[in-house]
Amino acid sequence: MAGADKHRVVIVGGGFGGLSAAQTLKGANADVTLIDRRNHHLFQPLLYQVATASLSTSEIAWPIRNILRKRGDVRTLLGTVMGVDTVNRTVRLENGQTIAYDSLILATGARHAYFGHDEWEQFAPGLKTLEDATTIRRKLLLAFEAAEREPDAEKRKALLTFVVIGAGPTGVEMAGAIMDLARLTLHGEFRVIRPNDARVVLIEGGQKVLANFAPELSEYTLRALRKLGVEVYLGEAVTLIDAKGVVFGGQRLDASTIIWAAGVEASPAARWLGVEPDRAGRVKVAPDLSVPGLPEVFVVGDTATITMPDGKPVPGVGDAAKQGGRHAANVIKARIEGGVTPGAFRYRHAGDLATIGKSKAVIDFGWTKLRGWLAWWVWGLAHIYFLIDTKNRVFVALSWLWIYLSGQRSARLITQGDAENKAPIKEVTAPQKP
Amino acid sequence: MAGADKHRVVIVGGGFGGLSAAQTLKGANADVTLIDRRNHHLFQPLLYQVATASLSTSEIAWPIRNILRKRGDVRTLLGTVMGVDTVNRTVRLENGQTIAYDSLILATGARHAYFGHDEWEQFAPGLKTLEDATTIRRKLLLAFEAAEREPDAEKRKALLTFVVIGAGPTGVEMAGAIMDLARLTLHGEFRVIRPNDARVVLIEGGQKVLANFAPELSEYTLRALRKLGVEVYLGEAVTLIDAKGVVFGGQRLDASTIIWAAGVEASPAARWLGVEPDRAGRVKVAPDLSVPGLPEVFVVGDTATITMPDGKPVPGVGDAAKQGGRHAANVIKARIEGGVTPGAFRYRHAGDLATIGKSKAVIDFGWTKLRGWLAWWVWGLAHIYFLIDTKNRVFVALSWLWIYLSGQRSARLITQGDAENKAPIKEVTAPQKP
Repeated sequence: MAGADKHRVVIVGGGFGGLSAAQTLKGANADVTLIDRRNHHLFQPLLYQVATASLSTSEIAWPIRNILRKRGDVRTLLGTVMGVDTVNRTVRLENGQTIAYDSLILATGARHAYFGHDEWEQFAPGLKTLEDATTIRRKLLLAFEAAEREPDAEKRKALLTFVVIGAGPTGVEMAGAIMDLARLTLHGEFRVIRPNDARVVLIEGGQKVLANFAPELSEYTLRALRKLGVEVYLGEAVTLIDAKGVVFGGQRLDASTIIWAAGVEASPAARWLGVEPDRAGRVKVAPDLSVPGLPEVFVVGDTATITMPDGKPVPGVGDAAKQGGRHAANVIKARIEGGVTPGAFRYRHAGDLATIGKSKAVIDFGWTKLRGWLAWWVWGLAHIYFLIDTKNRVFVALSWLWIYLSGQRSARLITQGDAENKAPIKEVTAPQKP
Repeated sequence: MAGADKHRVVIVGGGFGGLSAAQTLKGANADVTLIDRRNHHLFQPLLYQVATASLSTSEIAWPIRNILRKRGDVRTLLGTVMGVDTVNRTVRLENGQTIAYDSLILATGARHAYFGHDEWEQFAPGLKTLEDATTIRRKLLLAFEAAEREPDAEKRKALLTFVVIGAGPTGVEMAGAIMDLARLTLHGEFRVIRPNDARVVLIEGGQKVLANFAPELSEYTLRALRKLGVEVYLGEAVTLIDAKGVVFGGQRLDASTIIWAAGVEASPAARWLGVEPDRAGRVKVAPDLSVPGLPEVFVVGDTATITMPDGKPVPGVGDAAKQGGRHAANVIKARIEGGVTPGAFRYRHAGDLATIGKSKAVIDFGWTKLRGWLAWWVWGLAHIYFLIDTKNRVFVALSWLWIYLSGQRSARLITQGDAENKAPIKEVTAPQKP
């Protein structure tokens, strides 16, 4: 398999960063091993649409191995990395197996983080993996089902209260999509409750929604959300989350469904490398994305932190991970081929996008700003374009067309873990009065 | 909601039987309640295609509530029935809630059964629910991933051995589809193993595959399976299943993936009614599908057993459940409206169908028999036609077209339970030598 003389590149993570690194290494005289603990590359920007039943899991995920099937120089391994031996240059997997590298790219992403309140996760799941999305989808759909059966009006109200914590793009998109789910999709299908009575509450600790966007887009989004019926609370910190609901701004709100979109924490790459992470657990990298003191190790995407010459930090978005992966791969390529080594990584920010329910969006390209209906179309076309596989593009486009024309969402499935035989209803519990 | 004077019909189960009963009751002067422990109607004939990564879960399942959304007379409840009080005429749900009925239709289907060896289930999952299908899909795909990482040749062989137990339509279709998955889809994507080396072993206790089909079709299927590369063993009973493999015909076969397609057992409706079930747990019903002694209670589909005037039992297939549901609903309708009560249930057998891998099938219409390529097209068109929703029809047709043209399967996702954050690889364990 591996020519003994070839430069061995190990990439950990098959997300935007790792995949773009593998693709950039095409034609390099290297043996590439890509390791991921999932078998699929996930198109995270559309994950909230799986959580809100618009898209099916297979429409936004594609097997990594299949994406790289024509690359005889790439070996794809399903495995969980447990550590890195930077002296002997090996990566250790969960079963003790080690994989040797000459160059290493860590692109392991981030998980949602609860700011020291890990106990909140069981009540307020975040959204990073396909399983997170189907968990949230189940919770959302079960809440309506349980409300339909609930004789107590107070409990029914709590079941129909949906709280989203964090008003970045994910929180804003989730809040809008839950509103649409209730008003456009579930409307008319129940006999006791009216899905239109669902309350969607968006709580943000800062003073703005979409704080990274231009002020006029942020303000537009706030107005659009409120017009859609979303209750938005700004500058209110959540101080407690439990099975009954949330406490924020000193008051309790009973809610059976709470979604966490407030913060992320990098994967444990810093620990593997024995370097000091920043506050969010990220590895501080050198201008070429290598780790100071370990020139053969690169960290890209959400796991790394780096500041551009203009003083701005590179944001934790997919496009930054892609560009980082490409840069690291080009540095390695230049070292193998003895060519000109690329200089410092320069992140080019293409823009920020977010949808606000059906048919509205905001786009901040920097040089121009779009909002409303036109922005929504641009958003949709851009996301279809960036999907990884032609089949996904066709199916996502058709699913959206279907929803647009009929209001019917195609993926309204309440599914459980597996090895089951459990009735999903067992999980339906209305918040109990103490 | 419910007019107090209206006849209350409770239907338990939203499968083929229950749904057709609800649809037949359209226009009757009745309040209908349909209870299911799932929120979706599942098109079981294509479930094996979810298990083998061809179709996505949402392509063969559709929310029951959505199917019946225009029926103001039908209330859909997500709930698990725990018992029936035939004296007070109520159905009891998992939370103690009771639902009163004047007429009751039980259409609760069947689960796979292990003939007194329940301990086999953990090693050899069966295929009845969406979760069963994603469990099998994960096991199949993980076996190839684990084999790619396994240094020991003996263990690699066991990882690439797939055993299907039972050669009825489900077993035959699974065996063929696993072969296609290995040879057409995964081919060329691995660097250590050759997916083409996968062994698919089909074990049947009886003397024939597809024993219910005409002898010439059964023989054709056997030849076609063997030509495809499936190893078929007939007249061999499985005597042991464990984590390492199976024992049949006195010999042990190491295999990491075992799929059970050998038998089913009815849901506990007989226990709820306090009547004596047959050997497979089914309720023996009267000619009009009511329960002897309980004229207001009907049992249809896989949960009931009934013999036609020609002495043949009604088979446990979707079409028989549909016809049974329709008949029971018509009897109830006639009682409400005081019209002519339909006579005894007469099952009209439309035919038996099964696919054998890509582009071959057998169809036994009784009056005519089809096999090979033409049968496969008829099979495909018939299944698209019978799918429940237009969107499902379009998407299944497109998915099949895609697979046909590219060989790429769209739903190759290894996903776990939810509430997780576990690495799927933890489940990869090669069978251990003792």
